[in-house]
Amino acid sequence: MEGTIRCAANYVPLSPISFLERAAVVYRDKLSVVYGDHVKFTWQETHQRCVKLASSIASRFKISRGDVVAVLAPNIPEMYELHFAVPMAGAVLCTLNIRHDSKMVSTLLKHSNAKLIFVDHQFIDIVKGAIEIMSKSPATVPQIALISDSGELQALPNSDIVEYEALLAMGSLGFEIRRPIDECDPIALTYTSGTTSSPKGVVYSHRGAYLNSLVGILLNEMRSMPVYLWTVPMFHCNGWCMTWAVAAQGGTNVCLRAVTAKGIFGSIFRHRVTHMGGAPTVLNMIINAPETERVPLLGKVTVMTGGAPPPSQVLFGMQQLGFDVCHAYGSTETYGPGTVCAPKPEWDALPLETQAKLKSRQGLNHLGLEEVDVKDPVTMKSVAWDAKTIGEVMFRGNTIMNGYANNIKATQDAFKDGWFRSGDLAVRHSDGYIEFKDRSKDIIISGGENISTIEVESVLFGHPAVLEAAVVGLPDEHWGETPCAFVELKQGYKVKEDELITYCQKNLPRYMAPRTVVFRELPKTSTGKTQKFVLREQAKAMGSLSLRGKSKL
Amino acid sequence: MEGTIRCAANYVPLSPISFLERAAVVYRDKLSVVYGDHVKFTWQETHQRCVKLASSIASRFKISRGDVVAVLAPNIPEMYELHFAVPMAGAVLCTLNIRHDSKMVSTLLKHSNAKLIFVDHQFIDIVKGAIEIMSKSPATVPQIALISDSGELQALPNSDIVEYEALLAMGSLGFEIRRPIDECDPIALTYTSGTTSSPKGVVYSHRGAYLNSLVGILLNEMRSMPVYLWTVPMFHCNGWCMTWAVAAQGGTNVCLRAVTAKGIFGSIFRHRVTHMGGAPTVLNMIINAPETERVPLLGKVTVMTGGAPPPSQVLFGMQQLGFDVCHAYGSTETYGPGTVCAPKPEWDALPLETQAKLKSRQGLNHLGLEEVDVKDPVTMKSVAWDAKTIGEVMFRGNTIMNGYANNIKATQDAFKDGWFRSGDLAVRHSDGYIEFKDRSKDIIISGGENISTIEVESVLFGHPAVLEAAVVGLPDEHWGETPCAFVELKQGYKVKEDELITYCQKNLPRYMAPRTVVFRELPKTSTGKTQKFVLREQAKAMGSLSLRGKSKL
Repeated sequence: MEGTIRCAANYVPLSPISFLERAAVVYRDKLSVVYGDHVKFTWQETHQRCVKLASSIASRFKISRGDVVAVLAPNIPEMYELHFAVPMAGAVLCTLNIRHDSKMVSTLLKHSNAKLIFVDHQFIDIVKGAIEIMSKSPATVPQIALISDSGELQALPNSDIVEYEALLAMGSLGFEIRRPIDECDPIALTYTSGTTSSPKGVVYSHRGAYLNSLVGILLNEMRSMPVYLWTVPMFHCNGWCMTWAVAAQGGTNVCLRAVTAKGIFGSIFRHRVTHMGGAPTVLNMIINAPETERVPLLGKVTVMTGGAPPPSQVLFGMQQLGFDVCHAYGSTETYGPGTVCAPKPEWDALPLETQAKLKSRQGLNHLGLEEVDVKDPVTMKSVAWDAKTIGEVMFRGNTIMNGYANNIKATQDAFKDGWFRSGDLAVRHSDGYIEFKDRSKDIIISGGENISTIEVESVLFGHPAVLEAAVVGLPDEHWGETPCAFVELKQGYKVKEDELITYCQKNLPRYMAPRTVVFRELPKTSTGKTQKFVLREQAKAMGSLSLRGKSKL
Repeated sequence: MEGTIRCAANYVPLSPISFLERAAVVYRDKLSVVYGDHVKFTWQETHQRCVKLASSIASRFKISRGDVVAVLAPNIPEMYELHFAVPMAGAVLCTLNIRHDSKMVSTLLKHSNAKLIFVDHQFIDIVKGAIEIMSKSPATVPQIALISDSGELQALPNSDIVEYEALLAMGSLGFEIRRPIDECDPIALTYTSGTTSSPKGVVYSHRGAYLNSLVGILLNEMRSMPVYLWTVPMFHCNGWCMTWAVAAQGGTNVCLRAVTAKGIFGSIFRHRVTHMGGAPTVLNMIINAPETERVPLLGKVTVMTGGAPPPSQVLFGMQQLGFDVCHAYGSTETYGPGTVCAPKPEWDALPLETQAKLKSRQGLNHLGLEEVDVKDPVTMKSVAWDAKTIGEVMFRGNTIMNGYANNIKATQDAFKDGWFRSGDLAVRHSDGYIEFKDRSKDIIISGGENISTIEVESVLFGHPAVLEAAVVGLPDEHWGETPCAFVELKQGYKVKEDELITYCQKNLPRYMAPRTVVFRELPKTSTGKTQKFVLREQAKAMGSLSLRGKSKL
């Protein structure tokens, strides 16, 4: 329109860096970060520490705009600070999964071309091992910065390794922050969990992180100055972007090195926690905590769950303990939450169990995403809202990743036809809400019928003796595959294979009930997801044994 | 970063249109708009009505992308719908002040080059008059669409004028929404109040409106599905952008044709209002409502006030009635609220009156703005945080207007040196909070001393007999100017000029106390601001009389 201009007064590239700068003034003396008995910072202090750290990252390590800086650390204050300091140095923060071994870390450092890695003392040997592996090939080896035991400025025998607090001390408050030039410039890089041979590095932008932070505040129904307990790993989608969101609202970050029921209840009580998040496994840990570790809730605690479909029994159990659970669904590619199962007021009148069932659906796109749909991946037609027709979940909007780092082919495949293809299978209910059925790679096809492993697991969960369950396909000569359940029982409970099979047959169409039940501890990723590929391997071995047996006849 | 792309899957220009589209699914059957006894719509209905209306606007009136569509209407459902329908037709919504006369309306229609005007039946004569004035000059005359009395499809004698519901009925649900191509494309045009000879049309973008809506939700601490009472005129900064924000949260818009204490209390009770807004005048109307019109609050009602500095007595009075008041400050150019006086938890321990005083400060920039500062307008240096040094309030960020329509000179002046210059004078307190002192054109300079008229008014407000007060400069041969107070008394109170002067002398430095007091009803703009230019005219006449008187000696 005539008479208007775009200039520094009315256009600033969106970036979460602004949240910290504002918090340093608006919430100046409010607690920003607490950890254990001794670590406590205010927002002014956190801002100053981040500026100094950014300055050191830029000058001491010669990190330039767009360089990748990796970090291997649990949910400690330094991990939080790096979420601002690294972008403030103009660099891209690559958070690594703390369950990785040296080999995996070396692969990711090489793939990301990281110039520097921050490592918590607990994981220094993993990184040293990774560097050793890298030294054998012509790859450039990243520099190392060590996060030593809380605040201790230990003398480092190896002079190449700089200590975090020392680094911070040499930084300058006068450092000029390197804000993004374009708001779509990258801010973070996260390798998706379960990665093995070809790592997929999901790239987030400053714009996406900014918008998803605001949405995270709304999803969590967060008022200003919340108290957020860090039970979601910050290395996982940058803690669903709540790292940045908490700064936007001037909240307090309660850090936790390890997630335990005792730590959770203790922190809730001590710091008057208002919000937290966690995969259903974490919720299950809370529900099954021994009486001695439990503390009654004094105020409202909102818990966002996601990362795996929460069985309705888990939602019900949390509700009974007094937690307010909000169920979101998404993936690393959607900056964490992509949909939310917004509860409808009319559900309040329904029995609690029916409510939990409705709430265990994945829901609809949140405000930051333009659209979620369930489509036929070939024709791109939307499925009918009949709660039956299965299609692929697809998303589009501003909180979808920039793409996969250094893998344009994978990016183009993921964005084919202008939608992000999640690889998840779902149906759509008559109210538009989507319900996740399975990962396309997990679904079982038995005698030509699709079996949602999630549905079978959900029924198993309903059995009083079952702590957790995972269902995979067992190769079968006649049916192709049959459902095989891996089950972990609650302490003190005993139950036989047959009993569980009969139970499932009563509660499911017969073809969906498991034919085999194996009792074992379930293998997990660090983000609490069951590693189905491990179980699938086991089932494959079992299947081939039985097939071999048959061929002998 | 290598491997990433920008495409339809991960980049969508920000626009509030998305809020309505999402609400139509997520909040499908929830009440969107209620008005009087008979009008009630759901979000699905509102969405469908807006699509059909957009279709008719585009096809019936041949409105193209970027064309201006004006509206002259109070806070009725149709006014709300136009906030979406006009942008969905690709056009720019120009909301006109309902207090304007035909002459002013003709000036603004001409200046904005509006192709179409929607007019509420209450104001049809104003528009007819405006068109008549325009017909005398070579200006293009806009087409007219009439909003008839609630829902009645009255036959129109003049066939050139199309009725709103008839227009809607001829619209098509298959219309393809014209979303912005660039998110900085204009969405709305608002002429600033108090405009006389050279109108200033403030242009908002889709991006700014989107961001300011999210910020509005946070500022109001709005959970999902709020109930918003429309006491802020929608023609004023598009109701501080809450028009779009309420859709984002799937709330219910309670419309009100006229703002009265009875209407406010009645609506709060009947619809369980959770949020509303209003200039201090509206708050004053609530506080001074007769007992018979009052209804006790059943739930929490958050009220955002702004548009003029709220006297601490008004904040205190509202608090005593149980309202939760949030004080924001800004201007049309900042999309309404630019700063917010975020209350600090430690204030809770202070006496209520001290709290009210702290809360009457203008505070700090909200999340959508990057920065607010108080600067010397010549050197551009920030003033000291000493609560004394006066400077000009300046803003920069994404919720600053695109500029003034068809007035590049005014735009460049306003954005000089990369900051939006508000023309407001303020100081900065040691906690960074700004405190508004006066409009630069309102401040009184008496014997070389600056006198903040706001401070004098605030003292006058403390007198039990005073309902409202406005102070302007009275021309004076010796001092240049002296403070002159215009005062409106509460019903049933009587007080003499001398008593008020003595009262001010006791509570202010002597040079700041008014020398003259005039009792009269204060002239107001439709947004509740006192029209100081009217009072200044009166003072000028009084001054020249007395000056003439003196010269005769």
